[in-house]
Amino acid sequence: MSDIKQICERGKAAKYIMNGLDTQTKNKALLKVAETIVADMDEILAANDIDMKNAAEKNVKASLMDRLKLTVDRVNAIAEGIRQVADLDDPTGLVLEERVLPNGLELKKVSVPLGCIGIIYESRPNVTPDAFALCFKAGNSVVLKGGSDAINSNLAIAGSIRKALASVGIEPDVIQVIDSTDRNDTTTFMKMKDYIDVLIPRGGAGLIRNVVANATIPVIETGTGNCHVFVDETADMQMAADIIFNAKTQRTGVCNACESIVVHKNIAEAFLPVMKERLSVKDVEIRADESARAILTDSKIATEEDYGTEYLDLILSVKTVNDIDEAIAHINKYSTHHSECIITADTANAEKFLKEIDSACVYVNASTRFSDGFEFGLGAEIGISTQRLHARGPMGLRELTTYKYNVTGNGQVRS
Amino acid sequence: MSDIKQICERGKAAKYIMNGLDTQTKNKALLKVAETIVADMDEILAANDIDMKNAAEKNVKASLMDRLKLTVDRVNAIAEGIRQVADLDDPTGLVLEERVLPNGLELKKVSVPLGCIGIIYESRPNVTPDAFALCFKAGNSVVLKGGSDAINSNLAIAGSIRKALASVGIEPDVIQVIDSTDRNDTTTFMKMKDYIDVLIPRGGAGLIRNVVANATIPVIETGTGNCHVFVDETADMQMAADIIFNAKTQRTGVCNACESIVVHKNIAEAFLPVMKERLSVKDVEIRADESARAILTDSKIATEEDYGTEYLDLILSVKTVNDIDEAIAHINKYSTHHSECIITADTANAEKFLKEIDSACVYVNASTRFSDGFEFGLGAEIGISTQRLHARGPMGLRELTTYKYNVTGNGQVRS
Repeated sequence: MSDIKQICERGKAAKYIMNGLDTQTKNKALLKVAETIVADMDEILAANDIDMKNAAEKNVKASLMDRLKLTVDRVNAIAEGIRQVADLDDPTGLVLEERVLPNGLELKKVSVPLGCIGIIYESRPNVTPDAFALCFKAGNSVVLKGGSDAINSNLAIAGSIRKALASVGIEPDVIQVIDSTDRNDTTTFMKMKDYIDVLIPRGGAGLIRNVVANATIPVIETGTGNCHVFVDETADMQMAADIIFNAKTQRTGVCNACESIVVHKNIAEAFLPVMKERLSVKDVEIRADESARAILTDSKIATEEDYGTEYLDLILSVKTVNDIDEAIAHINKYSTHHSECIITADTANAEKFLKEIDSACVYVNASTRFSDGFEFGLGAEIGISTQRLHARGPMGLRELTTYKYNVTGNGQVRS
Repeated sequence: MSDIKQICERGKAAKYIMNGLDTQTKNKALLKVAETIVADMDEILAANDIDMKNAAEKNVKASLMDRLKLTVDRVNAIAEGIRQVADLDDPTGLVLEERVLPNGLELKKVSVPLGCIGIIYESRPNVTPDAFALCFKAGNSVVLKGGSDAINSNLAIAGSIRKALASVGIEPDVIQVIDSTDRNDTTTFMKMKDYIDVLIPRGGAGLIRNVVANATIPVIETGTGNCHVFVDETADMQMAADIIFNAKTQRTGVCNACESIVVHKNIAEAFLPVMKERLSVKDVEIRADESARAILTDSKIATEEDYGTEYLDLILSVKTVNDIDEAIAHINKYSTHHSECIITADTANAEKFLKEIDSACVYVNASTRFSDGFEFGLGAEIGISTQRLHARGPMGLRELTTYKYNVTGNGQVRS
């Protein structure tokens, strides 16, 4: 049984050690970590095997088993991901602003690490090395609490990372894994505000809700995406069908997948059959309001609950609206403020949608699936923020930093 | 009795109205608000009179009575402050970054209002118009929960503001005051996460702790300052005494006042008597560790609790250290990460202190009293953040905004 408080105390001490490492030292350490993880392939796969067997005994469903599974290729991909992080620019130590105040004080706003970052996640063991690499590159220590399903895999990977760090003279406690599978320990962890500076939950809506309800550490909410596509009356119907097909079916279990279509009444009769035809290739189930059901007669009825649901499955809700204002109001009411799209040929409506939709990423004539740190050119991604504080949308290395004001004087006092 | 949820629902609806107001409309409205507050002088002072009488009956202490009191001059100053906010640049609608992705998508990162901001504060009624003006200028709606002592003043000021807004055709619900003095309502308010985007508590450590423990809305912590001055062995002693005198005594009840001195052992014997002499003018009580008491023989002993206390009074703790590393470790352990200072003639030590001290504002040879939005040239201040997420140190208009990504394509889908 872990002593959560002691782990967090060590994490806090380690953040001050991190602050002393220069870019070159961090990069060399990351390359050593990548090398060591590959060298420890057998141990990591053996540990993962135990997790897979335990999960099979508990009849865990196939999609979760797939997320849990590590293979030689997947471990090599993990190491390659770490090497890529070593190649990225260091986001700390940048002078963001600089000015001399009238009294002669020299003020510099400088980017610095967030500190000690807590991450709570579910069954994917690759989050352990990915999250470590990004937090480490941005100068942070991390305390990781993964899903109990993946505990052996996580401990093996973290053990490999810690060994690599120790071998290059870096305090291994810059990464720690909470090895408890007791839910009470998770709740205790969320309240370690004196030691952990920021908590990032990564996982399903239930996990996020639990963290928001119980944490006293400041939280960055990530990853719930009830994303909408609005088909305006001037939409290119072929483009609309292509974008919806991509946003709904390219990957269904992801937060930037489309879950709901809002359609202008003037295009509904022409467009909905085209859309249905396109989606039928992947057997997408459509749940529609009464107006849309008059066109798609064999659809199920969409309830209030449907409009608020992130299906993460081959299901799509459809809502008919009288105009763009109704579309925007509907979307702002039901969305999780992640990613929304308008398909339109009307520039004024495109501008209006970009301005009035209250989401992290707002698209005109493109798939919501582009909401991603790599696609946006951030070079990395620790998650996609759906809150407004600190970071919004895809978060890369820069979003794992904060800033401080350094002020240099020669005896100035305030009068 | 207020219906907290209804108020918050109206606040959320009002944020979408705010988002439609251009800069000129906001500025005209602010000038009208300033004018109306002056025109309503008699009503505002009469309401404040009721609060003052109620406070006197409850034997509220003099310093709090002074914070509560409004006068003709203070109301005029409030109006002038609002006019100054109208003069500041609009922080919204700025293109923070812009790039074309390899697939042709045009990505713009644009500054937008935070949304609906909740503010919980204590007895100063001037927070009502100040906070409104800043939030409004940055495009946000606000729900304000002031101290029960100031309820009549707050309602009178908010009534005047709402009247002014209505007279220029703006929905008055962009500012609402919760008129309940029931503490349960305050707790309910902190959990209105579906409606309020950000919660900013302004007040003493107890208020901040209560909000952090109970809020589910993301919080920006402000204003607790256990600020340190470290007198290094190479310090100019006269400069050190001047800065400490200023930081400790210029205003004692403020978060950027100095509460603790850390002194290098090699300068302690020469410096501490100079410091004591300087502080004796204001009868500052000194609580010192054993080494310092050997020099300042009539000082009280400093306890662990002293080192963790923000006195907000004419009291100062003193800690002797062997070197700068011990000074930095002590400060990082006990500070509230607000503002700390080193007095030194050693450039390497100055650099080390700036890098390793984990606080929002770090000073070399200048008073901690400069930690202030106006002094830093931000043009305004809604508070001083002591957390790392979103904003750190003095927060002006820009810190009342977030951003969104606007992405424009011509049919792009993800492959």
